[in-house]
Amino acid sequence: MTDATRTETDSLGTIEIPADKLWGPQTERARRLFRIGVERFPPVLIRAVGLQKQAAAEANLELGELPRAIAEPIIAAAAEIAANRLDEHFPLPVWQTGSGTQTNMNANEVIANRAAQMLGRPLGARDPVHPNDHVNRGQSSNDAFPTVMHIAAIEAVEHRLLPAIDTLRFALASRAEAWERIVKLGRTHMMDAVPMTLGQEFATFAAQLAHAIARVRATRADLAMLPQGGTAVGTGLNRHPAFDRVFCERLSALCGRAYTPAVLKFEAMAAHDALVALSAALSGLAVTLMKIGNDIRLLGSGPRAGLAELIVPADGLSSSIMPGKTNPTQVEALTQVCAQAIGNHTTVTVAASHGHLQLNVFKPVIIHAVLQSCGLLADAAEGFAHNMVEKLQPNEPQIARHVANSLMLVTALNPRLGYDRAVAIGKKALAENITLRDAAIALGHLTGEEFDALVRPEEMTRPGIILPGGG
Amino acid sequence: MTDATRTETDSLGTIEIPADKLWGPQTERARRLFRIGVERFPPVLIRAVGLQKQAAAEANLELGELPRAIAEPIIAAAAEIAANRLDEHFPLPVWQTGSGTQTNMNANEVIANRAAQMLGRPLGARDPVHPNDHVNRGQSSNDAFPTVMHIAAIEAVEHRLLPAIDTLRFALASRAEAWERIVKLGRTHMMDAVPMTLGQEFATFAAQLAHAIARVRATRADLAMLPQGGTAVGTGLNRHPAFDRVFCERLSALCGRAYTPAVLKFEAMAAHDALVALSAALSGLAVTLMKIGNDIRLLGSGPRAGLAELIVPADGLSSSIMPGKTNPTQVEALTQVCAQAIGNHTTVTVAASHGHLQLNVFKPVIIHAVLQSCGLLADAAEGFAHNMVEKLQPNEPQIARHVANSLMLVTALNPRLGYDRAVAIGKKALAENITLRDAAIALGHLTGEEFDALVRPEEMTRPGIILPGGG
Amino acid sequence: MTDATRTETDSLGTIEIPADKLWGPQTERARRLFRIGVERFPPVLIRAVGLQKQAAAEANLELGELPRAIAEPIIAAAAEIAANRLDEHFPLPVWQTGSGTQTNMNANEVIANRAAQMLGRPLGARDPVHPNDHVNRGQSSNDAFPTVMHIAAIEAVEHRLLPAIDTLRFALASRAEAWERIVKLGRTHMMDAVPMTLGQEFATFAAQLAHAIARVRATRADLAMLPQGGTAVGTGLNRHPAFDRVFCERLSALCGRAYTPAVLKFEAMAAHDALVALSAALSGLAVTLMKIGNDIRLLGSGPRAGLAELIVPADGLSSSIMPGKTNPTQVEALTQVCAQAIGNHTTVTVAASHGHLQLNVFKPVIIHAVLQSCGLLADAAEGFAHNMVEKLQPNEPQIARHVANSLMLVTALNPRLGYDRAVAIGKKALAENITLRDAAIALGHLTGEEFDALVRPEEMTRPGIILPGGG
Amino acid sequence: MTDATRTETDSLGTIEIPADKLWGPQTERARRLFRIGVERFPPVLIRAVGLQKQAAAEANLELGELPRAIAEPIIAAAAEIAANRLDEHFPLPVWQTGSGTQTNMNANEVIANRAAQMLGRPLGARDPVHPNDHVNRGQSSNDAFPTVMHIAAIEAVEHRLLPAIDTLRFALASRAEAWERIVKLGRTHMMDAVPMTLGQEFATFAAQLAHAIARVRATRADLAMLPQGGTAVGTGLNRHPAFDRVFCERLSALCGRAYTPAVLKFEAMAAHDALVALSAALSGLAVTLMKIGNDIRLLGSGPRAGLAELIVPADGLSSSIMPGKTNPTQVEALTQVCAQAIGNHTTVTVAASHGHLQLNVFKPVIIHAVLQSCGLLADAAEGFAHNMVEKLQPNEPQIARHVANSLMLVTALNPRLGYDRAVAIGKKALAENITLRDAAIALGHLTGEEFDALVRPEEMTRPGIILPGGG
Repeated sequence: MTDATRTETDSLGTIEIPADKLWGPQTERARRLFRIGVERFPPVLIRAVGLQKQAAAEANLELGELPRAIAEPIIAAAAEIAANRLDEHFPLPVWQTGSGTQTNMNANEVIANRAAQMLGRPLGARDPVHPNDHVNRGQSSNDAFPTVMHIAAIEAVEHRLLPAIDTLRFALASRAEAWERIVKLGRTHMMDAVPMTLGQEFATFAAQLAHAIARVRATRADLAMLPQGGTAVGTGLNRHPAFDRVFCERLSALCGRAYTPAVLKFEAMAAHDALVALSAALSGLAVTLMKIGNDIRLLGSGPRAGLAELIVPADGLSSSIMPGKTNPTQVEALTQVCAQAIGNHTTVTVAASHGHLQLNVFKPVIIHAVLQSCGLLADAAEGFAHNMVEKLQPNEPQIARHVANSLMLVTALNPRLGYDRAVAIGKKALAENITLRDAAIALGHLTGEEFDALVRPEEMTRPGIILPGGG
Repeated sequence: MTDATRTETDSLGTIEIPADKLWGPQTERARRLFRIGVERFPPVLIRAVGLQKQAAAEANLELGELPRAIAEPIIAAAAEIAANRLDEHFPLPVWQTGSGTQTNMNANEVIANRAAQMLGRPLGARDPVHPNDHVNRGQSSNDAFPTVMHIAAIEAVEHRLLPAIDTLRFALASRAEAWERIVKLGRTHMMDAVPMTLGQEFATFAAQLAHAIARVRATRADLAMLPQGGTAVGTGLNRHPAFDRVFCERLSALCGRAYTPAVLKFEAMAAHDALVALSAALSGLAVTLMKIGNDIRLLGSGPRAGLAELIVPADGLSSSIMPGKTNPTQVEALTQVCAQAIGNHTTVTVAASHGHLQLNVFKPVIIHAVLQSCGLLADAAEGFAHNMVEKLQPNEPQIARHVANSLMLVTALNPRLGYDRAVAIGKKALAENITLRDAAIALGHLTGEEFDALVRPEEMTRPGIILPGGG
Repeated sequence: MTDATRTETDSLGTIEIPADKLWGPQTERARRLFRIGVERFPPVLIRAVGLQKQAAAEANLELGELPRAIAEPIIAAAAEIAANRLDEHFPLPVWQTGSGTQTNMNANEVIANRAAQMLGRPLGARDPVHPNDHVNRGQSSNDAFPTVMHIAAIEAVEHRLLPAIDTLRFALASRAEAWERIVKLGRTHMMDAVPMTLGQEFATFAAQLAHAIARVRATRADLAMLPQGGTAVGTGLNRHPAFDRVFCERLSALCGRAYTPAVLKFEAMAAHDALVALSAALSGLAVTLMKIGNDIRLLGSGPRAGLAELIVPADGLSSSIMPGKTNPTQVEALTQVCAQAIGNHTTVTVAASHGHLQLNVFKPVIIHAVLQSCGLLADAAEGFAHNMVEKLQPNEPQIARHVANSLMLVTALNPRLGYDRAVAIGKKALAENITLRDAAIALGHLTGEEFDALVRPEEMTRPGIILPGGG
Repeated sequence: MTDATRTETDSLGTIEIPADKLWGPQTERARRLFRIGVERFPPVLIRAVGLQKQAAAEANLELGELPRAIAEPIIAAAAEIAANRLDEHFPLPVWQTGSGTQTNMNANEVIANRAAQMLGRPLGARDPVHPNDHVNRGQSSNDAFPTVMHIAAIEAVEHRLLPAIDTLRFALASRAEAWERIVKLGRTHMMDAVPMTLGQEFATFAAQLAHAIARVRATRADLAMLPQGGTAVGTGLNRHPAFDRVFCERLSALCGRAYTPAVLKFEAMAAHDALVALSAALSGLAVTLMKIGNDIRLLGSGPRAGLAELIVPADGLSSSIMPGKTNPTQVEALTQVCAQAIGNHTTVTVAASHGHLQLNVFKPVIIHAVLQSCGLLADAAEGFAHNMVEKLQPNEPQIARHVANSLMLVTALNPRLGYDRAVAIGKKALAENITLRDAAIALGHLTGEEFDALVRPEEMTRPGIILPGGG
């Protein structure tokens, strides 16, 4: 940014603005009033701002609310914003007015000035394209910004988050298929339990993610109903009666996905229940990913003094002091992101709970948290898929050793011997550090042949054929 | 509880048990080992335990896994539990083993003993009905308890929560209808804004609850898929191949709603993503109710130095020091419950995030929190509907005064005069403490007649017919 | 409760009250208006109510605000409440007015009626002892209830929580001392690292708890400053100028610990920052206990396919399906309690953040959550100490095996060989599945004797004497 | 960044690095492996990294662990980092290995290369200054990074947060002093209550912040005890026995504040209880600020249809649709920041609760959240002080009107008439919409003169002189 400035004036006064920037007085005042933090809205939100302004201008043109000579430069400028070509002209922090008004005015001003450029007029002319009367025509920040929030959330979920989570789901499912015949010990209460397959373990991860994806996706329906058209408080004052419908038609065409006007526009202006639901689904996804990450960390623990059933891939990183140490670094990045997404849901919940009357004024923090969670979960899941899941290897000798040693294979004897005698066999084997087989024979409950016929780990990985007279 | 005891013995030893109680050694040991807190599972969970055991015994009977002479007393005893007639025999705290094993064994033992009573056998006989071999036939705590969790959650939601929330929704919608023509001032940023109707305000509350109900209900599909049949780790070891299917048929018949076996039974044993989703929906509902409660509290503030647009009903309670003070006590009960439900979701999230490998061992705390939130939100919403919403009265003179005084009526002039001239009118009226009408005339922008034609609060409560050439 | 009733009348009307109960009209009305949940205040809060009323009456007597004939029966009745002898006369749920007014009025009414009994007057006489004019003399619920909250919190922390946590700390410290010479492998990133002692591991747990105790205790100073004397909004209207001072003197004498009047009484009525701080310390304690529980769970995993460095004590409980399985049930109860305490802090945070102007009206939910966390953490920690920590045994052969096998012993070679050559040794040992010693010799970096002199696990458990010229 | 690269090699391989950057292979690999999000550590953390490395090198020099020729360039390079002159050479995201190892190695590599530059050696030479053997001498990421976390947290709190909060506290206290004689109505349950002064209201805010500052500051003692010297797992392997002590001496000198070695170094490596406590204090501060912000928002509501006791300053920003609307934008920025800080504490709590054994691997997310909360709360509080609190004006006519109208002035009659007769007066005044004075006279309880003598709002703002025979 150079030091050169130009002077602009609006109804509230006159102010100096950096000469090479397209924003106007409201933006400049906000920039000075909110010197808070380093957090900025991500590109997907700025893109959504552009889409909202473009669809609004197209609707106003169609409805005769704006003459073509004014609508067309607005549409062109908004399209540049939607293409993220004017990001540098959006300098405001997340921490601004709680309605997002300054970001909406930022867009109004940038578009008015960009239109002025196109029309050969000086920046700040406010004529023929006025930021409020024309760019914001039939709109208020109070309906425009929550509309932007919905658009940005849907774009972030559909374009970025879900494809990334599906990449991870696919990677896990692929390992499940590859490992479907590796029999391993299951663990409950973190203690040795009965056998299962490594494929079943990874298929469970994949299934969890499939459900998590469905839960995230289910929040879309409410988000696709837009408050645009509510204007100042939800009534629709000052907008054309058909504006909401035509706006959604234009937006749907621009985005390639269906948006419809909310029947009752007050709701998504006064409250953000639909975004709370999305945030909750992201937090739930984080809980799922935390479980997957933790399990792989546990199964990969070692290499010699842990469970060591999985071999963590060497990634070229190491301890600064312990030479050659390989750590599950991708698990750690992933699970840290999960902690952030879980905390972000608390942020969103608190913010949403503090809304009052016709306008929730925690809009910027809510959408920032939601988009941050989307972005982080997507990035981390993708990295985890490629740098960890796809490179994991099973340690088959160790896996086999664990199965062979487990005292819980005695469970297979329940149907034949009853629970109480099975307990006696297990206790004897543990106390005397002998095999279950030897304990069963010593107690006179079974012959060795009978034991071998009943206790077959690979058979224990699916529902049994119960013996007649069992129990 | 009398001091008399009887002696019972299981595979792990001998123990004294209160003579008049039906539980057995596992329960008695747990009772002594977990002397933690006063929290007990609510009746709906005990009922679900009975339903699960009854359906299991019916399935085992049908599949030939249990002889009729054993299955029938089990079924009869389980039905008594399902009818909450044996609640006193379930003494264990929430804070027990994380698998809920002790509550499952509590049920196994109570049923075995109740069956012994029915068959004229002494308590503790373990024969002919054995708690593990027969009552728990084809089951493990690891699949039975999460099945119970799902059943209890669905029962609590469908029978108790949703009807109560719908009662509140209906009460709000009724007020919305009654008040649809009362024009009042809207407020954004807690500041005076443009007009709307009181009906619109309450219709928004009702709409939010309709959406919240839909979000809660949407979690049912995943909960209706049961892990029963997974037995110890999810593989189904030791159960009949058809047990899961027949169990769900029997349970569906008992409950009058459809349950189906989960395809992959590992998932709802190892993790509780579906309950996290329900808990999230309850937390989201709490956010909605917090907003509704806060708004009614604000609108009812006064009676003389607040917004005072609503009249809080006198409820016969008063301040201990300020004579005759009427407070929105029902709002306070409701919003406190909301805080609890929001915190419970953090509890559930933390608990779910800490599960490992084949078994999440935070089952009791998760289901306790979910059921507590369901019960509290239901009770508080119902009381709020009857004791507050149905008794609220609008303070129409005050409402009218607020509309008449508002400077934001100037917004209606935007389409005619443009934003910048409208600002000038508003600023002048505020600075000189005169009416907008006088300011508009003084500035020469409008005649009095023109002003009156344009600024009509009741017209401002819906989308406008934009003037030709507007802007 | 019998069905018999008596009729009582107050300034707001007439109502039927159960004949055998001492409460009055305000309590009875509240009981009917708040049919929400099953949660009741714990005995420690009722005790604090009694202490507050007793100290207030003693102060009013001393200051001449109440005649002796009225003050003495109030004092006597309040003392019975403080001794928890009248708990059955406090029927109200947590979920009531957010000021706790109904519980304060419940106390006022019970004391007035108990005094009437003592004086041979009928219940409900309100004369000579009136619930508001005499029992509540110089008080308001708005200062009395937060005073009760502070007293109850301090009593719960000092009498119950901290002794219990110190019991656990002592148990851990005792094991640390007993095991100070057992050399074991440390683990970072859940992966094998360099050696330490089992004593160091448990001493760390004990040190964490010592710090956690100090953090909880540090919150006491703010809580010992009481808002009593603020009356309705904090100004002290209607109370004797010296009432706050004398009240605290009397209360200090009753409790055996020092209380002082808050300089600015508005603060602890309008907000509950001091209780938020206590709740935060409890949540922090829960985080610490979660870590301790998880680590012991991990170290005790097995018995044959886990880390298995600790032997989890058999506790007479078992799996319902896997015979003889021993699980870390006490860890599970403890960590579930931790999840609850963490969630309770969210509850308290949300509740505290929603307070307005001169009165936070989330008092009941705040103190309920704080006292629940205190009680649960105390109970669970004590059970964990006695049933788990004191009974743990180290599995010394397994521990030794893990140390001997670890590739990270190579770290001891850094000062002599430099990091890069140490890496080469570690990589070779891992790749060829040979010992570090053999790898070091094969690479020509050290002789066997040199290796043995440098790599001594027991020496690695403390700061090294660095070789001259190291690096 | 240009496209030119250089080749560097370490013990794990060879890699291309941007030619103009000082980082090395470990950093470059991490940069490629962790493409997650846009979050970077703030300058205060990079400064702390420099301080840690500088103090470590000074200590190693003093103890003879590093020769002067090697120590001096390390010290010089670290000092440049501490002065934030090399920030561009720290490219890694927050979302990396959970030990912060990559950021520690980033520092080791940058210092080694910067030293190489100083010594006229090529970048990547690793000789004579080696990143592990010399820069990291006697250290591990496992003790260095948590040491950095403590330093950064203390610097952020002491240099940035507490001065900013104190600025706000001072602004509030100044208004309290200026407005100490403005009598206004207090409000409880959001309803009209008895009088107080505007000064008392603002003094309460100031007192809350004074307590919050003390609570934040109290967390410093634990943070000033550093784990440096624990090296890999806490034992101190490979460091000089006096390294921890000398390190803290040097660091204390560099920072101008006292640091001491933790007695048990395992603790702050394995867990982050001290940072959880700081995060909790920040969340508590956020709760306090949320209350202050909400109250000022409420008192400033209007300008004509709200409480309107405070006049919100015009800030040059306005609604995009409602001309001339002034909103409490600074309140909204502040309270949004509070929501973030509250959520960040959940993030930190979850992250801390998931640590295992000798190393918590959520270090980056924990310190990032703590530093973000510090920075945001500081920035927002400062802006709020200057742009809102210092510019607020009381609306004295409105304040006086509210006092005059309040029915709760009747409370002053309690001592004279008793609670029940005072209720009757209040009810009559409300029902008949007359003054309390007229109601009291009409009921025959007082003469007009008596009423005037007893009901004096300004007298009601402090403890009363109770009438003899009161009650």
